[in-house]
Amino acid sequence: MTDPIDFYFEFSSPYGYFASTQIESLAAEFNRQVCWRPILLGPMFQATGSAPLVDIPVKGQYAVHDIERTARLFNIPYRHPEPFPIGTVSAARAVLYVQQQDSALATRLAKRLYHAYFAEGQNIGKTEVVLAVAGQAGLPVAELEAGIAQDDIKALLKQQVNDAMARGVFGSPFMIVDGESFWGFDRFDHIRRWLQQQA
Amino acid sequence: MTDPIDFYFEFSSPYGYFASTQIESLAAEFNRQVCWRPILLGPMFQATGSAPLVDIPVKGQYAVHDIERTARLFNIPYRHPEPFPIGTVSAARAVLYVQQQDSALATRLAKRLYHAYFAEGQNIGKTEVVLAVAGQAGLPVAELEAGIAQDDIKALLKQQVNDAMARGVFGSPFMIVDGESFWGFDRFDHIRRWLQQQA
Repeated sequence: MTDPIDFYFEFSSPYGYFASTQIESLAAEFNRQVCWRPILLGPMFQATGSAPLVDIPVKGQYAVHDIERTARLFNIPYRHPEPFPIGTVSAARAVLYVQQQDSALATRLAKRLYHAYFAEGQNIGKTEVVLAVAGQAGLPVAELEAGIAQDDIKALLKQQVNDAMARGVFGSPFMIVDGESFWGFDRFDHIRRWLQQQA
Repeated sequence: MTDPIDFYFEFSSPYGYFASTQIESLAAEFNRQVCWRPILLGPMFQATGSAPLVDIPVKGQYAVHDIERTARLFNIPYRHPEPFPIGTVSAARAVLYVQQQDSALATRLAKRLYHAYFAEGQNIGKTEVVLAVAGQAGLPVAELEAGIAQDDIKALLKQQVNDAMARGVFGSPFMIVDGESFWGFDRFDHIRRWLQQQA
């Protein structure tokens, strides 16, 4: 038995979205499962003195271009959303709440939320949009709305972010495989090479 | 006839070094030449509010690990040098000076300087080390020593850095292909995909 790949992602991260479309096929190549771990980059940026990529002078303009080009080169549906970036507390809490009951369903919800934002332009920064997307995925909306307002779910997300930071996670996407850390959608090829060398 | 690939690199950049070992084979796949353009990241970091990667909290530790792992995964000889990073004005000026007379020889010198620093641990931040490496490459040391002290070579390097910044260059390695910008050794695969789509 091999351990799952820990997949850390922020819902406002375009490269996290790209990774979300391919992480499971990557893992399957090596008979791995994926542990989907929603995080919030805000607290992490404070630790590293970072800022949202597109807000950085010069680099930000390049980033917008690189994001759109990456989507084209990898055939991933993408429309740069407005507003961007957004707060993603509700989306992250929703995934954590559903995960407690059904992790496969939580993964489907995570993919749908990413797609809603980055392919359909729906503002998943709004709780009502998160709930609507969840409803389309067949989830019980009233239960989910109550669930993400629970104190233990709020505490769980904080704990997840703190645990991630304690493991050295500082960006999105961030993958940890057998204790080995990889940052970025552009490290998928490195993960592949690394796992091949371990085999 | 196709235009050359502009290859911007800073001699203190590990990912620039990695790129230097593969840029010519990448270009050759598409019948392209490479225009080697030494730059200095210092002035660029001021423009973007950036800092040397390894100095950034949390991210810096990851970067050192990622650099060493990247070298292993791509079979590139690498020993993390001390001191690091270094000032690379003399190395950059030496390449520009030689380029004025013989661009193929300048390319060989650039590769040797990179290898001396990142594979052999020679401190190419020191002018005498730059000259010694150039001497081993068969270059006339006394002429080169006088050459890199010339005002017009100093002005040329400043001009190159300013021109690069005017084109949006902010990091190393940075490639511009037919007006399209790519930042990072991890974008070689994107350049390949992009050029294939243009064909």
